[in-house]
Amino acid sequence: MNPTITQMTNRSTVRKLDPSREIPKDILENILRATQQSPTYTSGQQYSIIVVDDKVKKEKIADQTISSAGVRMEFIHEAPIFLLFIMDFNKIDQALAYENTDPEIFNTIENILIGTVDVGIAAEAATVAAESYGLGTVMVGALRKSTETLIKDFNLPKYCIPLLGLAIGYPSKEMVQYPDPSYKVTPRFPLEYLVHYNNYEKKDLKKHFEDYNIIMKEHFLRKRGLDSTWTAYMTRYYSKPFNKELLTIYQKQGFNF
Amino acid sequence: MNPTITQMTNRSTVRKLDPSREIPKDILENILRATQQSPTYTSGQQYSIIVVDDKVKKEKIADQTISSAGVRMEFIHEAPIFLLFIMDFNKIDQALAYENTDPEIFNTIENILIGTVDVGIAAEAATVAAESYGLGTVMVGALRKSTETLIKDFNLPKYCIPLLGLAIGYPSKEMVQYPDPSYKVTPRFPLEYLVHYNNYEKKDLKKHFEDYNIIMKEHFLRKRGLDSTWTAYMTRYYSKPFNKELLTIYQKQGFNF
Repeated sequence: MNPTITQMTNRSTVRKLDPSREIPKDILENILRATQQSPTYTSGQQYSIIVVDDKVKKEKIADQTISSAGVRMEFIHEAPIFLLFIMDFNKIDQALAYENTDPEIFNTIENILIGTVDVGIAAEAATVAAESYGLGTVMVGALRKSTETLIKDFNLPKYCIPLLGLAIGYPSKEMVQYPDPSYKVTPRFPLEYLVHYNNYEKKDLKKHFEDYNIIMKEHFLRKRGLDSTWTAYMTRYYSKPFNKELLTIYQKQGFNF
Repeated sequence: MNPTITQMTNRSTVRKLDPSREIPKDILENILRATQQSPTYTSGQQYSIIVVDDKVKKEKIADQTISSAGVRMEFIHEAPIFLLFIMDFNKIDQALAYENTDPEIFNTIENILIGTVDVGIAAEAATVAAESYGLGTVMVGALRKSTETLIKDFNLPKYCIPLLGLAIGYPSKEMVQYPDPSYKVTPRFPLEYLVHYNNYEKKDLKKHFEDYNIIMKEHFLRKRGLDSTWTAYMTRYYSKPFNKELLTIYQKQGFNF
């Protein structure tokens, strides 16, 4: 073990952030610089980050971001900093224009795969970097619901899509004083259901779900005020699309596939 | 600064790995456990990891993975461990079957956005975790080219797609003795072209490209044996799709959008 591994293994999402405690500017800059050195496909840096610290803008994002479970995410405006991660091919488009070349790949699904993975990498880098300062974070995928409004509100040009948010702030006293720290870590699948060796071994998960449903009900869902099991929770998220307009919005932003 | 930030800010991809030095089993397990606690959309864990340490399998991946620049990636078989990151909705499909519900979202682009971001997050977590042990890593997006072969070779079921690879190993002596460590860090765009505040400010990048092309030629491309500039390098990757069959392959794996 080493401090980075210990931090990562014991992390959990911190949904109660202290709105009164600002993040020092040098810490934010260090987080952004650490993020920037994370891998990016072919050194293309296919993303941008919007630092949102304006109260009105944060409030508006919070108003629009309702989870599939129907919950308003208070931590979005409580966080002193909300990072908005943009899949950004506008810079690549300018690079190809500089070379008088058409970006033919933009009209394929491949482009989306590159940009979304790049955003995931950067958002995790920012998470680890922020947590190394004792900050709490919440990653927000539910922004997909308000993709179109965010494009307008943040003035995103062609080939740019908001994909993910990251609320960052100091944990509120309530979280810090949580009685049993081990309780906070969200239980994951046993490693054998995540990791395979040299070959994918498809497993029947029924027996696992029976156990995991009880564990997640007790240690995750109940804490969030939900009387549900993990499989029922997944059903809520996966039975219906969250944003039916996504394909149209992507096309409007210049992506055709 | 703290050790995690220092590590992340000074990292670089290590393309020369020592094939003779194995990764201890407990270190690999710690890396996987640290990875597992990284954020995942709605606790869904929409990915799997295949640990590839079989020499024949690594050799075959290396044979198939030719970069857009036409280069065979020797580090894939030189690495003692190659992690294959799979976007995996097979587990979610089983969860919904357990609840007798149809995963309607699987027929939308939204699903792909969730899975690709989840894979990006996990791959970056594994990168930071591995590097905390002094290991070198190379992330490999060029696997997209051999998506269909990898699906067959690793026996991937419906709703599973290989997205990304991560070569992990101890840096070869050649890399460790590199004369100037600061030289190794790949220069990124100045922070002002990555980070925006409260609003996306579209910038004309022409002047920036002139500077960055010189920096990247000197400090990145020449080291990789390429006589090119950054914008020319981007053109090579973005002018044509790398794998024209991707949409068809995704559809065969059960994704319709």
